[in-house]
This record gives sequence, structure tokens and C-alpha cells, in this order.
Amino acid sequence: MAAVQPGDIVQLVGHDKRYFIFRVEAGGTLHTNRGVVQHDDLIGREWGIEVYSHLRHPFFLLIPSTDDLIRDLKRSSQIMYPKDIGFVLMKMAIHPGVRVVEAGTGSGGMTTVLAQVVGAGGHIFSYDIRPDMQNLARKNLDRVGLADRVTLCLRDIAEGFDEADVDALFLDVPNPWDYVAQARRALKGGGFFGSIVPTANQVSDLLVALRREGFDFIEVCEVLIRYYKAVPARLRPVDRMIAHTGYLVFARPVTADQPAGSAGEPGEEETLADDGGQDPDLGEGSAGD
Amino acid sequence: MAAVQPGDIVQLVGHDKRYFIFRVEAGGTLHTNRGVVQHDDLIGREWGIEVYSHLRHPFFLLIPSTDDLIRDLKRSSQIMYPKDIGFVLMKMAIHPGVRVVEAGTGSGGMTTVLAQVVGAGGHIFSYDIRPDMQNLARKNLDRVGLADRVTLCLRDIAEGFDEADVDALFLDVPNPWDYVAQARRALKGGGFFGSIVPTANQVSDLLVALRREGFDFIEVCEVLIRYYKAVPARLRPVDRMIAHTGYLVFARPVTADQPAGSAGEPGEEETLADDGGQDPDLGEGSAGD
Amino acid sequence: MAAVQPGDIVQLVGHDKRYFIFRVEAGGTLHTNRGVVQHDDLIGREWGIEVYSHLRHPFFLLIPSTDDLIRDLKRSSQIMYPKDIGFVLMKMAIHPGVRVVEAGTGSGGMTTVLAQVVGAGGHIFSYDIRPDMQNLARKNLDRVGLADRVTLCLRDIAEGFDEADVDALFLDVPNPWDYVAQARRALKGGGFFGSIVPTANQVSDLLVALRREGFDFIEVCEVLIRYYKAVPARLRPVDRMIAHTGYLVFARPVTADQPAGSAGEPGEEETLADDGGQDPDLGEGSAGD
Amino acid sequence: MAAVQPGDIVQLVGHDKRYFIFRVEAGGTLHTNRGVVQHDDLIGREWGIEVYSHLRHPFFLLIPSTDDLIRDLKRSSQIMYPKDIGFVLMKMAIHPGVRVVEAGTGSGGMTTVLAQVVGAGGHIFSYDIRPDMQNLARKNLDRVGLADRVTLCLRDIAEGFDEADVDALFLDVPNPWDYVAQARRALKGGGFFGSIVPTANQVSDLLVALRREGFDFIEVCEVLIRYYKAVPARLRPVDRMIAHTGYLVFARPVTADQPAGSAGEPGEEETLADDGGQDPDLGEGSAGD
Repeated sequence: MAAVQPGDIVQLVGHDKRYFIFRVEAGGTLHTNRGVVQHDDLIGREWGIEVYSHLRHPFFLLIPSTDDLIRDLKRSSQIMYPKDIGFVLMKMAIHPGVRVVEAGTGSGGMTTVLAQVVGAGGHIFSYDIRPDMQNLARKNLDRVGLADRVTLCLRDIAEGFDEADVDALFLDVPNPWDYVAQARRALKGGGFFGSIVPTANQVSDLLVALRREGFDFIEVCEVLIRYYKAVPARLRPVDRMIAHTGYLVFARPVTADQPAGSAGEPGEEETLADDGGQDPDLGEGSAGD
Repeated sequence: MAAVQPGDIVQLVGHDKRYFIFRVEAGGTLHTNRGVVQHDDLIGREWGIEVYSHLRHPFFLLIPSTDDLIRDLKRSSQIMYPKDIGFVLMKMAIHPGVRVVEAGTGSGGMTTVLAQVVGAGGHIFSYDIRPDMQNLARKNLDRVGLADRVTLCLRDIAEGFDEADVDALFLDVPNPWDYVAQARRALKGGGFFGSIVPTANQVSDLLVALRREGFDFIEVCEVLIRYYKAVPARLRPVDRMIAHTGYLVFARPVTADQPAGSAGEPGEEETLADDGGQDPDLGEGSAGD
Repeated sequence: MAAVQPGDIVQLVGHDKRYFIFRVEAGGTLHTNRGVVQHDDLIGREWGIEVYSHLRHPFFLLIPSTDDLIRDLKRSSQIMYPKDIGFVLMKMAIHPGVRVVEAGTGSGGMTTVLAQVVGAGGHIFSYDIRPDMQNLARKNLDRVGLADRVTLCLRDIAEGFDEADVDALFLDVPNPWDYVAQARRALKGGGFFGSIVPTANQVSDLLVALRREGFDFIEVCEVLIRYYKAVPARLRPVDRMIAHTGYLVFARPVTADQPAGSAGEPGEEETLADDGGQDPDLGEGSAGD
Repeated sequence: MAAVQPGDIVQLVGHDKRYFIFRVEAGGTLHTNRGVVQHDDLIGREWGIEVYSHLRHPFFLLIPSTDDLIRDLKRSSQIMYPKDIGFVLMKMAIHPGVRVVEAGTGSGGMTTVLAQVVGAGGHIFSYDIRPDMQNLARKNLDRVGLADRVTLCLRDIAEGFDEADVDALFLDVPNPWDYVAQARRALKGGGFFGSIVPTANQVSDLLVALRREGFDFIEVCEVLIRYYKAVPARLRPVDRMIAHTGYLVFARPVTADQPAGSAGEPGEEETLADDGGQDPDLGEGSAGD
């Protein structure tokens, strides 16, 4: 039977769905507006049960989802949404053992997920120009015990990244087109480039820079999540949804034998882009050996 | 400089974006409709460059994304889309080291991603009633070197799962409502339950079963991806998109002190569901200690 | 030069986009929280200019769009959205001269648009069981001068409609499946049936009733509107959107020579539905003579 | 009992949902790949029944919806979709009696709907630079008996429109930003301007021109339709949908007392745009007198 141990990340969720995420430490105390919870009262308890504050307010004792973890970060900036991060993981092949460069660090939401997924054998190099953001991110990473997988770099990335041959590089900055050459130098050949930008104009600017710097396999997309009211006899979407967070742009730095740009007329470029973008169907791949 | 090694999973992509994914072995050979490629000619080459078949057809030498890997699986059944899998990873906290039960195995697409993400320290237990599907999945897992992280179980899951206290359990079967009790017995307290079903009627049936078996924190959603033509001066969505793959349902088995069902009138249930579902906003969490 | 006349419907819009819609009458007065506007001061003024309240608050002098008109209705019930109404007009061939039955009347939003579009030569028969709703709708119709095109009927539509051979009939009631037979009797052969329901379960119930009563050409759809921030250099969707208002269901009462139901196995039905629903492409029609 | 009359527009629909739309004339003949239908055999028949070709192929005898009419137009250009046209009607207050300018004419799809909705008391002035398009549009309008409500003008609209004080003006041309000044001169003060463009870049260009020419109340949006398989026990969205037709842009020419442009910093503009665009909620209007 699985029980809470010191060091576990715990999520206490009240009946109103408000929650508190923290790391359990012997002797620790959680203060909430619904009373105090002693960490020692949680240690050894089974996951999924109800526990109580000293004011007898009930909380479910849960492990937070990655989605919950990110929502709960202390933050002073817009952070990436789980819907976008999840798709980035799939498109950029983030998995245990890989090395990833990221800029900016921001509040550390994306950093947290990357650090979790690459595991102890991987590493994240996260750049930001603002010391306050990196301090906040460090605090957020410490809280979930992932700080040792992340190297925080205080730097204007116009000067370039220290790393080379990294597996993947993600830019969440207002002007990613200014750093595409730097990104190319940090990435391994054919590595995974990704970025998120809020406006269509930024997408256009980034696409121009990516083509100029010899990136190919460029894809642009949006991820939308539509929630439903979970009532069996009256199933329906909720009234409002988040309509936009950002456009995701993916690309791969390649070395073509023909000089880049000779490959296509504008019309052909569009056709190529269609092939990449219009066929997200699973049936497109072609089996190998 | 990163170069191809024996054992690497390689994706050769032609100029028409058609591709071949395989594992590089000394002495191996890839036969394509555009000529033959000797694996030995790839070993030691830098990632991201162009290589040629014996008919001089060019291919980019890349590492496949998870998205590419899944699209390329040999399959004899509908498989989960990367857009859905990516979000499942976030909602079910799949990360290195966790133990996950899955049914059915199908062609092994979801299995492949789960095995990749849980790393060498985690494990996947994948159930299916059809031996042909499990053989296909085994072949797909072998091809990408992940078979040792997966235990394939040929079984009617109505009889239950062998595991207990698993971190997460995912049902991709036509009638998940028939196995919710079994799922609860396999999951650790408060563990992560997920399922995907194509129709609204199935969602309703599953919701009824989940409430009956004491699951809470139920969420229903859809993930939609909208691709754009990657042409900077004429940025626009592609004409057609995949409008539906399935509804995702998430829930947590909890043990309330009050018997399940006493907690709410239907109206209250709806309000509760709204809270969970209508607030996917990142601002909802409440910071802890 | 077009100028405001007595009897015109006017929309005064402040700089904060809040607006007031009313009919201009000689000697009339508009009281707002930003001061008083005398109707006589508007008569003879050019459309599109700025006018002022006695407190010197500026308002643009405009003709309201149908969208604005509907938003401005006094209402005590959920009303149909312009996005849905506009599509209903196209699918149900609402145009000058047609006769339309509608139930329930509700606050009269849909009634207002129908009355406007059918013109002086058409007519709307609007049923509701609640006198308070019909009084409210009458007031709303009077305000925009359309009351003479509408016959309001206080009636439980389970007893049937008084009309026969109407061109179109629209049900916006919680249980439309209970009135499909009545709807069929009121519609001309092959006439246009439409309905809106908020939940997926209601759609299923309605579909069963429509097939039972010999309706064909059944279509189910949702209309979604995504707004953008109208900033040229930072074009992007707004953050939030209305994710759901209702499912629209359309059908036609036909008289097949074969008894209804003999035509298809469930599987075939699904194929048929696919043909109707999956091909909303404009290229599907086939030119005639 | 409603029966087919000479002059009626008829839609014959086969069991495979393919259809033929034409105007019934005494002595007329319809040739189809499923045999011949004599118009005289239709006259006097009840709507909604099945009729047969000389080869005994059955067809349902229906009145076409506006949606069907547009899909069936002979066309040599991309035409506007019913989903977009329906919303344009609502946003631009198109109703019986109004005068509307349109450019380009294209194949006459939008023209057909506008002519139908404005009724005998309204009028459409439709401009195009290509005689072949106008001939095609004339043929399409003749077929449905609406030609007398439309004045076709062969003209480069850079030279301006002949009309003044029109109620509404719609631009469906590749470079609408070049004709905004001309549009303003044709529109009545505060009249309804609308346009549709396929790319985000065109939206930006049009927004710049609209602000420069003193338009306000600018809104940008997309309309999306999601169809469902109409199977009661297996309700689900169809697999694929049309993901994009165009961006709709709406605006009103106004005469502010302050010179245009003095009103706002860029930041304020964005806030203003938000107010207009982010609140498509029906609850936003404010009741008047």
C-alpha cells in the first residue's frame, strides 16, 4: 500500500478544488486559510484519502499531476500551458537522457517539466536576462526537487549559448528571430528547434529567420483544449475556453548539399509547407526496413 | 560533433517528406523504393546532413521526433495521436520511474511513448485480449529498443490486472466503463486514471461508472491541433484539419470519509464539475507553504 | 446624405463601446448614466457622427447591426447567439416572404431576426407556454417595430401548432423530441426543421425522434466564432472565447416510398450520416440542367 | 397542401445525397446521369415526396436551402462559404430593403444570398474587373430568378464606386486595403463595412488602412463549423473539418470630432480592440430608454 514519505511532493485538495502543493518534511507545517496541517500527520498515510486541518477542513491527499504542478508555480510572468508543453514534448522528442537548452527561463514552468522528463540522466540549460526571473525559477525548481538537473544561465542570448550539440532548444522570448543563428550553433545537426509566440506577425518574422539560417521541416500550429462538463446525463462543453496562448513553431537545422533557397519558388515552398503541415494524419509515415 | 552510432534510431527523410525509420546496425541494409542505403554508410556521419541511396536519391539524416515515431508504427488498429498522448503525459504525471498499466495494447503507439518517458527505472504493463495485436506491438517496441521496459499481458481485463499500487492506468478500449472497478484495484490510492473514447455516449457511460466506483476530480476534454501554412508573407491555417480523434477522460480514485454519492445533489455535482472543467486557467492554483 | 428620421432605430455608442439602442421619436428622451440625450437633437443629424449628452459625453450615432440588436434585448432567458442564428438562416432558407413557426418564444431574440428577414411579406408564428416570456418578447418586438410580423401564441406545443404548410419550423425548447410529430404536421412537405440543444444527450434523443417521424437529411453541427485583437502589428486571437452555446440540428420531413427504417442497417446509417455531415465542402453539389 | 409550381426552384436529391437544382418550367427537361426527369411530371406534386427519373432512379423533391444553393453554383473561383455569409448578414444588418455594394462579384455566391435577403425592395451593386466572372454570376443569378435585384458593374474599383449612401459594402478581393477610401465614399455615415481575406498578413494590411481612413468598431474573427455524425447511439464529431476559409473583418466609417489617431497610444488601441473583440458575450449590451 502506497503511503506518503518525507520528500514526497504532496497536493492537498479541498472540496472546492482549491489546492496546496508542497514537499513533505518531518516537522514541517502547512498554513492555509482553512487551518494548519502538520506534515508529520501526513507521513505514512495512504494516498487518496481525506485528511483534516486543525479546523477540521477536509483535504484529499494526492500526488499532483504535471498540469497541477505548473498551475501552482509562483510566477511573475506568463507561463507556458500544459497543453502546449505536452505537444512540445512529442514534437521535440524530449525523453530521459536528452540535453535541452531553453530561453527565457521565465518563472520556470517549462523548465520544471523538461527537468522532470529528461530524468537524472539528462540536463536543462536555461537562459534568461533577468536575475529576478531566474531566482523565482530556482525557487520553483527547488520546491519540487529538480534544481540539480537545471543549469540556470544569466545571459543575453544574443551573445550565444555555451552549449553545443544539444538535442533540443526551445525559445520562449518576444523576438526569437534574433537568436536563430545562435540556436543553430548550439543544436546538434538536425536537432529539435521549437518556439512559442503569441502573434501572427511574430510567426512570420520567425519563419523568415529560420529559412535564412537553413532550417527545414518547419511546422506552425496551435493547440486547443476544449473541456466538458462531466455530467453524464447532460454532457456538453463548458461555456468558455482559452482561445489562444501562442503559436508553436518547430524546425530542424539541416545541411543541404544544394544551397538553401535554391530549392523552391515561392509556390513550391507553399506546397512543401502544405505537405508538412496539412498531413498531421497518422497514416502518412512510410514503414522502413 | 554528434554522429550516428550503431543502435541509434534513424529517420531518413526524402525531399517529398516521406520517411523511413529504423535502428542502425553494422552491416544492415535499408531497401526503399528510391534505392538501397547501407547502414555502414551512415555510421559516423553527422546528424542533419544529406545522404544518398545507391540511386542517388537524397535523404536528410535525422533523429525521429516522438510524433514521427508514432506515425511510422506498423499498425492494424486506430492508434492514439501525439496531440492526445502529449496531453495525457501532463495530466497523468507520466515521468521517469513511474509504473503504468495500459489496456488495450493495440499497435503499441501509446505503449512506445509511455516506455520512452518512464525511462529505464519505470515500467509499463500493457494488456490486450488479442495475440495478434500484442505480437505487432512487441515488434514495434523491439524496433525502437524499448521492449525491456514493457510487460505484455494477453488477458481479458474483465478478470482484473495483476498489478497493484501502480501510479497510472490508461484504458483505450471500446467499453472502459466495464473495467473501472478493476482499474481502481490496480491503482494506488489517488493514482491517475485516464481513458480515450470516440463518442459522447461512451463518455457518459464512463462517467457513470467512475462516480459509482468512487473516482473524483473527473475531467473530460478534447485536444485539437490547428496547423498553419508556414509561408511568412501568407500565413494562414491549412484548409482542413483533423476535427476529432477522441474524448479524453481523467479521474482519481479517492477514499472520501463520507460515502460516495452523499456528497452532492445532481445540481451540486454539476457545479463541482464546472469548477474542475471550466477553470483550465493557469491562475487557479493556490500556492502552498 | 443619410440622416436620422423619426422612427429610426438608433444605437448610441460611447467611447467605452457601451451602447444604447432605441427608436427615435419626436420629443423623446434617452436617460443614460452619462447624461440625457433629446431625440429631437438627433433627428436630421448625419449617421456616423458624434453626438453629446447634456453632460458632454460623446456617443457615435449608428444603426445597430443585427448582432447588436440581439445583444441589447431585455431578456430573462438564455437567447440564441447571432453566430447560430446566422447559420440557421442559411440552412433553413429564411428569406423575404416565408412563413416560420418557432417555439419557444423566449425573450424574442430569434423572433426578432426571423421577423426582420422574412420582411413585410412573411410571417412568424411564435409559441411559448409562459406568458411572462411572451410579454417580454412583445415588448422587444415593439421596440424595433417588428411586432406586426409576429403572431405570439401562448400554448403548450404538445397540443400541436395551429399552422400547416409552413416553410420552416424551429424548436428552441429543452425537449424538442417530444414535439417532432407536431412539427411534422405544421411543416410543408420537405420543409425546413431546425433545433438547438445544449447537451449531447439531447442531440441523441432528438435524432431518435426525427428518424422515427420520417425526417431525413439530418445534420448536426456547432458554430464557433473566434475573435482576434484588431492590432495590425500584433495580430492574435483574443485570450478567451465562447466555447459552446448549443448543438444545431437540421432535418427535412420527407415521404419515402419505402417505409422509413427499412433503408438502412446501423452501419449504413452511419455511412449516410457521414456523407451528409462530413462533406460540408462547397464542391459537393452537382450542377443541374 | 404545398405543391410545385412553374417558376419554383427545385432540388432533386438522390439517395446518395447528390442533387440537382433548377427552376421548373412547363415543358422543361432535366438530364442527369441517372436518367431524365420531365418538369411537367413535377408540377403539381407535393414537396418532400419521392419522384423518379425515366430510369426509375428515385429523388426527393425539395426546396434547396440557401446553403445548398450556394454549393450548387457553377463557379470558376473560390466562393464564400455559407458559414461566413450567415455571420456577415448578422454583423452587417443585411435585411429587406437595404442597398449593398459588393466587390468582386466572383461566381455570384455572396451576390445570390444578398439579393435573396434584401428582397424586392433592396438592391445589390456588384463590381468585378473580370467580364467572365460577371457573365458567370449573371447566369447563376438568372437561374434562381434574382437577376433583377442586382446591378453588375464591370469596373476596376480603384476608380471608385458609382453609389453613395449605401447601407453596407463588402470586399472580397485580394487587396481590400487599396479600396478602403473608395469604400468610405460609397457608404453612408456609420454604414457597415465588411471584408474576407485568407491570410493573417492581409488582415494586418487591411486594419492599417481602415484606421487610416477613419473607420472604427473594427472586429476580426473567424467562423468555424464542426459537423457531427448524426448517429444517436454513437454521437461524435466527423473526423475532418474545414479548418479555414478566411478571416472576416468588420468596421464602421465614423466621423470623430477629434482627428483620428489622436485618440490612443498603441497600448490603448489594444485595450480598445480587446473590448470590442473579447466580449462577444450576449450580456454586454446595455439597455436603453
